[in-house]
Amino acid sequence: MSLATDSTHALVVDLGVRARAASRGMARARTAAKNDALLALAAMIRAQADDLRAANVHDVDAARAAGLDAAFMDRLMLSDKVIAQMAQSCEQVAALPDPIGEMTDLRRRPSGITVGRMRVPLGVFGMIYESRPNVTIEAASLAIKSGNAVILRGGSEAIHSNRALAALVALALVEADLPPDAVQLVSTTDRAAVGALITMPQYVDVIIPRGGKSLIERISAEARVPVIKHLDGNCHVYVDAEVDLEMAVAVTDNAKTQRYSPCNAAESLLVAGASAAGFLPRIGAVFAHKHVEMRCCPQSRALLQAVPGAAALLRDATEEDWSTEYLAPIISVKIVQDVDEAIAHVNRYGSQHTDTILTTNHAHAMRFLREVDSATVMVNASTRFSDGFEFGLGAEIGISTDKFHARGPVGLEGLTSQKWMVLGEGEIRN
Amino acid sequence: MSLATDSTHALVVDLGVRARAASRGMARARTAAKNDALLALAAMIRAQADDLRAANVHDVDAARAAGLDAAFMDRLMLSDKVIAQMAQSCEQVAALPDPIGEMTDLRRRPSGITVGRMRVPLGVFGMIYESRPNVTIEAASLAIKSGNAVILRGGSEAIHSNRALAALVALALVEADLPPDAVQLVSTTDRAAVGALITMPQYVDVIIPRGGKSLIERISAEARVPVIKHLDGNCHVYVDAEVDLEMAVAVTDNAKTQRYSPCNAAESLLVAGASAAGFLPRIGAVFAHKHVEMRCCPQSRALLQAVPGAAALLRDATEEDWSTEYLAPIISVKIVQDVDEAIAHVNRYGSQHTDTILTTNHAHAMRFLREVDSATVMVNASTRFSDGFEFGLGAEIGISTDKFHARGPVGLEGLTSQKWMVLGEGEIRN
Repeated sequence: MSLATDSTHALVVDLGVRARAASRGMARARTAAKNDALLALAAMIRAQADDLRAANVHDVDAARAAGLDAAFMDRLMLSDKVIAQMAQSCEQVAALPDPIGEMTDLRRRPSGITVGRMRVPLGVFGMIYESRPNVTIEAASLAIKSGNAVILRGGSEAIHSNRALAALVALALVEADLPPDAVQLVSTTDRAAVGALITMPQYVDVIIPRGGKSLIERISAEARVPVIKHLDGNCHVYVDAEVDLEMAVAVTDNAKTQRYSPCNAAESLLVAGASAAGFLPRIGAVFAHKHVEMRCCPQSRALLQAVPGAAALLRDATEEDWSTEYLAPIISVKIVQDVDEAIAHVNRYGSQHTDTILTTNHAHAMRFLREVDSATVMVNASTRFSDGFEFGLGAEIGISTDKFHARGPVGLEGLTSQKWMVLGEGEIRN
Repeated sequence: MSLATDSTHALVVDLGVRARAASRGMARARTAAKNDALLALAAMIRAQADDLRAANVHDVDAARAAGLDAAFMDRLMLSDKVIAQMAQSCEQVAALPDPIGEMTDLRRRPSGITVGRMRVPLGVFGMIYESRPNVTIEAASLAIKSGNAVILRGGSEAIHSNRALAALVALALVEADLPPDAVQLVSTTDRAAVGALITMPQYVDVIIPRGGKSLIERISAEARVPVIKHLDGNCHVYVDAEVDLEMAVAVTDNAKTQRYSPCNAAESLLVAGASAAGFLPRIGAVFAHKHVEMRCCPQSRALLQAVPGAAALLRDATEEDWSTEYLAPIISVKIVQDVDEAIAHVNRYGSQHTDTILTTNHAHAMRFLREVDSATVMVNASTRFSDGFEFGLGAEIGISTDKFHARGPVGLEGLTSQKWMVLGEGEIRN
């Protein structure tokens, strides 16, 4: 190891030791204290908006000088709107119920003991993210409310913004009499810090990466602690043989075109043979109007060929298309025989994110719900609803495409665990 | 890789492919079919008891020839009692409610969609265990009921017994019209099979090892899939300053001496200073009578010195004793100032398994419950109750000392996941 890496490693271990100690204080913090910290943070973000913008200018200027593109600059910028949203989100998290200490499932057992569960924080989580500095506040506010400590590792291009935001978080924690080490930022931009953060199970209980697929795959492969990870969103819309065509067109259009870049946008359209002649020309006209490229199986291509304006947007689908998350005005289109073939196709090519069936047939709806092995399965609704806020979680730290621990949109509950509690009156075991 | 290892790897991959395929059929299996398989298996175990004993004799003879000890032989032996228990346990699992398909938390959202959760199988799990062949039936029956497929890797010393048992499981699955590949045994005793099994996330969703600490540590370090692991049970009894001494003696005695080898037996006794003079001589007399060695802090040793028969059993505790799981008639004893010091001691030296407070003070009980960071925390009950059957899970596949996914005793629910379900009527997102 180089000297630089050595000192980075020592720095991250120090953050880990402090986080572990702070997590004890956070675990027993009163709800009122946690909410006080969140409201103080919201007030400080508003009051210090000028200073936050000044820190952000350093990052923005450096990124511009480095020739980073407009989309990147947009994510990096702490605009007035983003600053207002950060303050609001702290207030929203303060208004959520406190999950910690919740006791459930208490039952008296034949032995006389009462057994139940108590919800507790996970402990310490590490958040690894890219250019958006507002993630610093999102992760900090969810850590505070859920009684966890967090170590934040944001993108090096946002380091000045993140330092300014983390300083406010520390002040807010102190103001509420909570340990300031509950939220710490990795202050170095040395890449070795990530390697250290994901390999110290004694200090970090779980890693939540947000970013591109290659970043998340690398972290998952190298981590020695659990990772709440979100890879592709290759979401499917299946239009069944029995369906309200009007509704199917509206939902398919919404799922694909309402926004192209989110992970819950549809990427693949499956149509039951019996509905193809009625449905495909109608959705094809919508896609043609919106310039959505269609990568088709031979039969669907034949049905779409005559749609005005569509011909130029049609391509033959390759095997690879069925597995592809485009995040763009492109959709793959395939005619399937029935709900069986649809379920088999989704389970084979999908990414276990979100898939929806559009149908009027109850038995088909129930089979799709039960048998499609994805984090979220829908009936007659747009895949775009797959989101922590739309689901009523009140917050979202990420989306998990794993089955273990947290699945689908992850809110405060995903940052907690349940321990067993036993209440007795001196019972002994025979 | 040697040729042997190459062929073992290919064999395990083949098991994985078959298990993944069978898991689809198991996930949609009806409850009645799963119960039919379990009842058929119970009947076959009873009907084929002679053949099972004959297969077991091969293993027992080989183990005896290899000079393995009596405890090992005891675990390996398929006695009439063990055979009867295996059959009964299949019937008990059949009688449990089916967790799969359970829909919970359904709520209407402002958008109009109804959001809820559906319980589903994890998919495929790998079970790695040592000499007890009855684990083959326990794991198979829990896999069947929870709609999972399982790949079993038992100890090589039990290979003939395990093959005979696995053959019955396959027959029972076929009789119930379920895929026989849902329960497969690794038929080779090549150690490379374990390495293959724990590193194929495409086929195996979770690994459950049962065995010694070194086995579990090695599997955890090398696995590329989640591991439901159980390391030490360094369980504490804390006798508070305000306590019913009679009850405290009975519970402490039970926690330590009812059985010495289980992981939920107490290994460390903490006593509040105010209770020490009243409590220690009484429990010391019990331990002296049962020949339990006491590894003491200086103050507790002074109080125990005069107890008749105790002096020869007293030792000075070293720093290492506070972290040690003895699984033997030995206990560490320490006087602490108050509940604060007790909680800090348990969180520092404990193994996050099971810890109990004995107290009449409600505030102390609640603080201990909330702040001790263990899988199971008790008030006025023996640590020996920390068990899936005592908790009412109806079955236990293992105990987890992790916080992620399953914590504490793991029953059928630990072999499941919850996916999100959305029921709509054509809603689209604005």
